[in-house]
Amino acid sequence: MRGRGVAYKLLASHLVSGSPVPGEEIALSVDQTLTQDATGTVVMQELEALGLDRGRAELSVQYVDHNLLQADEKNAEDHLFLRSACRRYGLWFSKPGNGVSHPVHMQRFGVPGKTLAGSDSHTCAAGSLGMLAIGVGGLEVAMAIAGEPLYLRMPRIWGIRLTGELPPWSSAKDVILEMLRRHGVTSGLNRIVEYHGPGLATLTAMDRHVIANMGAELGATTTVFPADDAVRDFLRMEGRENDYVPVLADPDAEYDLTDEIDLSTVEPLIAKPSSPGNVVPVREVAGEPVSQVVVGSSANPGLRDFAMAAAMVRGRQADDAVSFDINPTSREILSDLTRMGATFDLIAAGARIHQSGCLGCIGVGQAPAVGRNSLRTFPRNFPGRSGTKEDSVWLCSPETATAAALTGVITDPRELGISFPRLDLPERATVNTAMLVRPLEPERAASEELVKGPNISSLPDFPPLPDRIEAPVLLKVGDDISTDEISPAGARALPFRSNIPRLADFTFTQIDDTYPERARELADSTGHIVVGGDNYGQGSSREHAAITPRHLGLHAVIAKSFARIHWQNLANFGILALEFTDPDDYDRIEQQDMLVLENLAGSLAGEPQLDVVNTSKNQTYRLRHRLSPRQLEAVLAGGRIPLLARRACDSGG
Amino acid sequence: MRGRGVAYKLLASHLVSGSPVPGEEIALSVDQTLTQDATGTVVMQELEALGLDRGRAELSVQYVDHNLLQADEKNAEDHLFLRSACRRYGLWFSKPGNGVSHPVHMQRFGVPGKTLAGSDSHTCAAGSLGMLAIGVGGLEVAMAIAGEPLYLRMPRIWGIRLTGELPPWSSAKDVILEMLRRHGVTSGLNRIVEYHGPGLATLTAMDRHVIANMGAELGATTTVFPADDAVRDFLRMEGRENDYVPVLADPDAEYDLTDEIDLSTVEPLIAKPSSPGNVVPVREVAGEPVSQVVVGSSANPGLRDFAMAAAMVRGRQADDAVSFDINPTSREILSDLTRMGATFDLIAAGARIHQSGCLGCIGVGQAPAVGRNSLRTFPRNFPGRSGTKEDSVWLCSPETATAAALTGVITDPRELGISFPRLDLPERATVNTAMLVRPLEPERAASEELVKGPNISSLPDFPPLPDRIEAPVLLKVGDDISTDEISPAGARALPFRSNIPRLADFTFTQIDDTYPERARELADSTGHIVVGGDNYGQGSSREHAAITPRHLGLHAVIAKSFARIHWQNLANFGILALEFTDPDDYDRIEQQDMLVLENLAGSLAGEPQLDVVNTSKNQTYRLRHRLSPRQLEAVLAGGRIPLLARRACDSGG
Repeated sequence: MRGRGVAYKLLASHLVSGSPVPGEEIALSVDQTLTQDATGTVVMQELEALGLDRGRAELSVQYVDHNLLQADEKNAEDHLFLRSACRRYGLWFSKPGNGVSHPVHMQRFGVPGKTLAGSDSHTCAAGSLGMLAIGVGGLEVAMAIAGEPLYLRMPRIWGIRLTGELPPWSSAKDVILEMLRRHGVTSGLNRIVEYHGPGLATLTAMDRHVIANMGAELGATTTVFPADDAVRDFLRMEGRENDYVPVLADPDAEYDLTDEIDLSTVEPLIAKPSSPGNVVPVREVAGEPVSQVVVGSSANPGLRDFAMAAAMVRGRQADDAVSFDINPTSREILSDLTRMGATFDLIAAGARIHQSGCLGCIGVGQAPAVGRNSLRTFPRNFPGRSGTKEDSVWLCSPETATAAALTGVITDPRELGISFPRLDLPERATVNTAMLVRPLEPERAASEELVKGPNISSLPDFPPLPDRIEAPVLLKVGDDISTDEISPAGARALPFRSNIPRLADFTFTQIDDTYPERARELADSTGHIVVGGDNYGQGSSREHAAITPRHLGLHAVIAKSFARIHWQNLANFGILALEFTDPDDYDRIEQQDMLVLENLAGSLAGEPQLDVVNTSKNQTYRLRHRLSPRQLEAVLAGGRIPLLARRACDSGG
Repeated sequence: MRGRGVAYKLLASHLVSGSPVPGEEIALSVDQTLTQDATGTVVMQELEALGLDRGRAELSVQYVDHNLLQADEKNAEDHLFLRSACRRYGLWFSKPGNGVSHPVHMQRFGVPGKTLAGSDSHTCAAGSLGMLAIGVGGLEVAMAIAGEPLYLRMPRIWGIRLTGELPPWSSAKDVILEMLRRHGVTSGLNRIVEYHGPGLATLTAMDRHVIANMGAELGATTTVFPADDAVRDFLRMEGRENDYVPVLADPDAEYDLTDEIDLSTVEPLIAKPSSPGNVVPVREVAGEPVSQVVVGSSANPGLRDFAMAAAMVRGRQADDAVSFDINPTSREILSDLTRMGATFDLIAAGARIHQSGCLGCIGVGQAPAVGRNSLRTFPRNFPGRSGTKEDSVWLCSPETATAAALTGVITDPRELGISFPRLDLPERATVNTAMLVRPLEPERAASEELVKGPNISSLPDFPPLPDRIEAPVLLKVGDDISTDEISPAGARALPFRSNIPRLADFTFTQIDDTYPERARELADSTGHIVVGGDNYGQGSSREHAAITPRHLGLHAVIAKSFARIHWQNLANFGILALEFTDPDDYDRIEQQDMLVLENLAGSLAGEPQLDVVNTSKNQTYRLRHRLSPRQLEAVLAGGRIPLLARRACDSGG
């Protein structure tokens, strides 16, 4: 038997059913779950729809981090609803302002060797602790909270051997940007990225968090690191050394695919607008004027990242023309930064200190001016994600971002002409667990009422898939359409995350603002179809990107290929995800063409291929689907929730 | 001659014309101006329309404090526009995040004995330094920047004698709440409040700021304190002792009206929802559950106020059900708080630390849930101002607010059972002037371009009043129509405050959403008339309520009576404000009637009465106007801006 890596061991130890052969559907037991506010309100509505009495996972935590801007009562209502649902279902509740789920989970709850399912695409960040942490749709997390296993296609394991040590002014962000530079935003599809090799010893657990987090931008199922001394050191700093369990690769571990990075050759990199894959060396774009710099987010959440920015600006002043924004990750990190004097240095240099949370990273605040360059340590720069339609957002390390804050132009930090700061970080974090609210005892929990303000809807009804679809292509989109473009976040849409009918008005409006109205016109008659290119549905895990078009009558998406989480969300909510067998057929279809899919129940159950007739062009295209029998049953029923409801009825419930 | 108080001396030393007799129009020279972002963008457009080359006041500062939440590109565009206008016109620019105009102005710029005109109703806070500081409409400030005097009716002076000393747990906020409890929200109309007496010696300059600020809630023209040792101490702390000038009342000063407060009898007070005048002792409402506590705003901006909150929560934890929000006033105060450890204590107790600025105070963030009690140290709790329509907002001191954060219910801080904290405040503030951007040198300024993003309009042209108006009554409204109903605020309309043509689409839509379209149809031909009842244009001073209907072709408003500030704004922007001499004529006019006003220049210049003919009804009504010759000239010219432009041309400019 060949030696096994960390990812394989984690998979094997949690395998409930299926065979760990790439492409096969497997089921994994889930130890921990996390939800956040932008996706969690729907998860709580799903728990209610499922009739759950009490969460059955070892640990489930509901965070509040995404939308902290309370422009009207909706946000406060969401917080009250989430808090009441945690009390009702026996979940942990992280109060507003505690900070971003991923670093907080890593600091307070993550345990090596465990599995974690989270309704956030950056859940994979916990791979930094030697966990198998997978971002999935909300319904998958609801099922995991209810004690059900997590289903996925067995990915291939991509071993990345690290050697050497990062030079000054390069940091973990540059490592993941190097991966994106080499391989692009779809390279990780159906893969788990596993880092190994001697270079690991030079990366702290929080450095690894940066790399694991943005594994999502490679499209990877997840990223894993071993649980080694760096993880033990981290847990000790957090006062949790007892939670340490080593999880190590066999010395002779083999991987399905391989690559190698010599860390000593990694230079400061930057992703140009508007994709995390547009990576170039910073020196190639040096001199571009910069209007805004933002440090923070789950992609650079560590104390070190902010302390580096603070050390670089100490005794200096941000350029007069730059808005220098700091999004602290968490209360704990803001406490440490404050204790060590870094908060003071940042304020003195002219930084705007925002409350802890995701905020600007998902377009809730700090939207830049049109066409003005904004440098961010964030994971994503999809068009419009910042809140500004014609934005110009770049992704880089804290070092590169801060250099631009000082000079007002994109600057390779090596050329800044200051000496590389030696950071003096505290040995122990300022641990304060008081703001994490424990689950109620079962007896008290059972009598808790859900607090539903006027903006908290129930889930809409989802009728079964019709056996024959004759519907127009209401929208044809290109490659790499993100869930941000399907169902935007941002300050306007986010407040309606708990209100599906209202949120549906934002569907696809970043691409075509006539879509919601045109879709509604057909919702009760033919419904409609969307045609996409490669990597349809990349980015965030939000299942609203399936629920809201479904609510508007979307029956099927026909694309060249799908991003993993969104593909699963489509199946969960009863939308057919179909792929062209001949990608050139994509070019043959035009928006408004009328397509016909016949005898769906029969043809889907047989061969995984079926034909669609374009009656406008008098053409026929061959399509395939990748649905498992389990998923197919759900799609035909209108989604997993109607399926469960039907089963409950069938069993006389 | 009777002894004179501070207010009278300040008025007398700045009198340009008129006689300081209550009710008479006087003109004052203006030494300093302040503008903020919510009103300032229009002021900058007015400077552009005036063709100003360079500001002529001694000192003019543009702040950015109200709307710091950047949900889309418009906010960043506003900031770029304001910055460029400051560069062009030679004004100071306070960068976003520097904090709230009033305390920052007091800390960095205020000088005893000077006058200050600000486009913000809380400008009066600078009365704490022995200044005469008056909140006025934007065009009044634009004129002051251009070197013109400020016109107002001479107010009566209300001397409030202070004796004794505040007991522990009562603070300055309770003094102004006591004034509101005694006298109500209209008691200060056409008055200047002047505090004097031995009790003054126990109040710091920042305590006085709290009292002067909320003089606006009494309806006062302004509030003044002497410039005495407390002011000298304050300026020394700010490194500006050289700016100290004593401004003291004569020992035998007499006042038009008088009252007295024995500070030792002032107990913790609270204003119930939803008026600053609903004041009761805290003990009478103790035990009410609290969902949110917010400390900050220009009404409690001092280091002391936040340090008190921090000292009270040190080593304790905010109640689990309370959102405990801190709005730091300014970078400087946040720096001091951080340096002294108070920021750390607040975070540790579970506070959410927001960026410096007004934010929640004007409903930009921290909107509470419907019907849930929110305790705030803010100046105002008008219904819906928080951003939540059916809100329940209470106003109180930092001591009372923090007590509720700890207990989760309204709590008299004397009953909290903790010892009264002794605060150890730094002797010197963390002065950092780098974030205040100095005016450019005239040579450089002259070549600066205004940076206008797509959402920044210029001020529209305002043609002269036609000599004959034959136009329909496009809208007939009832009594007490507020400027909110004429030009709404709120999250939808506010982002367009720099874009008059776009903002005009919201005009009167709360009453009749067909108005903008119907008005536009007639804008280039007849224009139109609005008919109103009593107290037309009450409420906020926003000049948009004159500018946007004017832009849509409004020539005249005929009403039973007008609210004072809006009446002034109508005159400033060239709209005829006419009153029925027989109020019963109001009932004789119907919407859509065609009215004719002839020979306007001639008839307005003679008797203050004129006739309007209703050709639809074949009736004639007698109207009157109350315009001074100065105002009449402006109205005929199309407003004060076209008038000044014409004068500049006439003088060969």
